[in-house]
Amino acid sequence: MSNTPINDLIHTLSKIPGVGPRLAQRMTLFLLKNDKLAINQLIRDLQNACQRVQRCTACGNLSESPVCNICSDPGRDASMLCIVESVSDLWALERARFFHGKYHVLEGVLSAIDNTGPDKLNIAPLMRRMHSGEVKEVIIGLSATLEGQSTMFYLVDLLKQFNVRLSSLAQGVPIGGELNYLDNATLSAAFLDRRELAAYAL
Amino acid sequence: MSNTPINDLIHTLSKIPGVGPRLAQRMTLFLLKNDKLAINQLIRDLQNACQRVQRCTACGNLSESPVCNICSDPGRDASMLCIVESVSDLWALERARFFHGKYHVLEGVLSAIDNTGPDKLNIAPLMRRMHSGEVKEVIIGLSATLEGQSTMFYLVDLLKQFNVRLSSLAQGVPIGGELNYLDNATLSAAFLDRRELAAYAL
Repeated sequence: MSNTPINDLIHTLSKIPGVGPRLAQRMTLFLLKNDKLAINQLIRDLQNACQRVQRCTACGNLSESPVCNICSDPGRDASMLCIVESVSDLWALERARFFHGKYHVLEGVLSAIDNTGPDKLNIAPLMRRMHSGEVKEVIIGLSATLEGQSTMFYLVDLLKQFNVRLSSLAQGVPIGGELNYLDNATLSAAFLDRRELAAYAL
Repeated sequence: MSNTPINDLIHTLSKIPGVGPRLAQRMTLFLLKNDKLAINQLIRDLQNACQRVQRCTACGNLSESPVCNICSDPGRDASMLCIVESVSDLWALERARFFHGKYHVLEGVLSAIDNTGPDKLNIAPLMRRMHSGEVKEVIIGLSATLEGQSTMFYLVDLLKQFNVRLSSLAQGVPIGGELNYLDNATLSAAFLDRRELAAYAL
């Protein structure tokens, strides 16, 4: 256990969110297998990603070029802008394949505990996009947490000066969700936003 | 999602045992944070480990030198040899700090399913150690699985030619284990190997 390069590697891996000391140890042992193929492949991929991946200057997404694939895609509707907290949220929406507008990655949410103020969020490029006049609807796609919702109210305040439709994601019973397992807040939100069935062809 | 260096990195990470696609994605996003400190640190540690870590030629442990710290430690009892399946098992025993002999890492167990025969195990250096005559007791510290136990019988067959004490780890109720949660095989092993209390100062 006193081999320093091994302990250094375990320590560095264990600082990655979602990787504890045990998994870091397991990963290290796998990577240091006899042939060293796995560790060399990982080093190459990390170097490649480190050198080639940057932030999209328009939206904050990860990209190989100054402007990402989504921002530069003429097939996507530039009049719809969905604001998300992180690249992983953007990826989640892209996996679902129903939104064909563009995104803006905030790179965080306002949080008093984490000392994240508006200056730490990716807001200046958002304001530039809004001033360009291209955007007609902004969908604020932030998590239904305290921080997400207070960030939403901050953004609404900031964006109401532009003549755009502002919306947020619907709250309610998740698809497949069983009522008896839902929390009170979700149930009450689902009740408040109940949908008139007369609106459907019954 | 079509950025190749990102997908390559996610793919490589997700092939590490214990890391699924979701964790690989999360790790990638963490590593590609703006400042790139984390990814550069990880690349350095991996390169360092890759270059400096090798297998101990005597026991198969990971080591920075041809012979590992444990094998070269004159304070450890060379007459006791504990055979383990993997370096992680060796680390587990070292963490418990009660064994002061030496180890031999088999680098696997016999397995028909994985097509692991005796030729794939680290057995030649074990035989050299046995022929040196230094070892007086061999403790076979393999897992209580089918593969572990059949490997144990194979080793017993191989080692009985040497005039050494052969032992295996005791099987029974784990410390802190509650009887009603134990499987039948463990309960029956614990019954068969029950300890005479008269042997203690009652």
